[in-house]
Amino acid sequence: MTGHEAKVRLKIQLNGTSIGPGKIMLLESVVREGSISSAARAMGMAYRRAWHLLNTLQEAFDQPVITTEMGGKEKGGATLTPLGKDLIDLYRAAEAKACKDSEPLLKMLAKHAP
Amino acid sequence: MTGHEAKVRLKIQLNGTSIGPGKIMLLESVVREGSISSAARAMGMAYRRAWHLLNTLQEAFDQPVITTEMGGKEKGGATLTPLGKDLIDLYRAAEAKACKDSEPLLKMLAKHAP
Repeated sequence: MTGHEAKVRLKIQLNGTSIGPGKIMLLESVVREGSISSAARAMGMAYRRAWHLLNTLQEAFDQPVITTEMGGKEKGGATLTPLGKDLIDLYRAAEAKACKDSEPLLKMLAKHAP
Repeated sequence: MTGHEAKVRLKIQLNGTSIGPGKIMLLESVVREGSISSAARAMGMAYRRAWHLLNTLQEAFDQPVITTEMGGKEKGGATLTPLGKDLIDLYRAAEAKACKDSEPLLKMLAKHAP
């Protein structure tokens, strides 16, 4: 709509954990890549950092959002649980609406860009 | 709605400037306090940091969002322009909608809190 690359970021802060575009992208990368190590590599992120982000995310939940298998190639496969998939879907739905809600603001910003 | 203190943060990133709750709160503090120095003090922020944040924000606009007067007490008075007031209003409207849009996500997070 605007000629400017406006990005709308939605972040939820809950009991010390924050859930935003970075962690959601990482979960989506795990879905695509099938393991935490491949997901990290695909995002140009160190394995330890990816593991840490997922671990931090997990602390906000009473059930696993991701399950990992030992013994595969590299560092084992990883799969999202239904809860993990729900998290992606609900976040992306809220984000899409937030982008739409921000249109009047983005329009004003585009109009007054230097 | 939930028993957990979930906070929804909406951040707009546009041409290197980011507009989020921190800068908006600072603008609102300037409205209330009438000067940048008082606004900073009310937020427990150093004057230089407040000035820097407002300067960064200003770079996203072709017109002033804030006008300052020399020669008053302390570091002079500051007033928001109509553009600055619009920015607050449009941001707060988008944010309120984003909070509402996030309800299904917040509900799920509350249900699965550890």
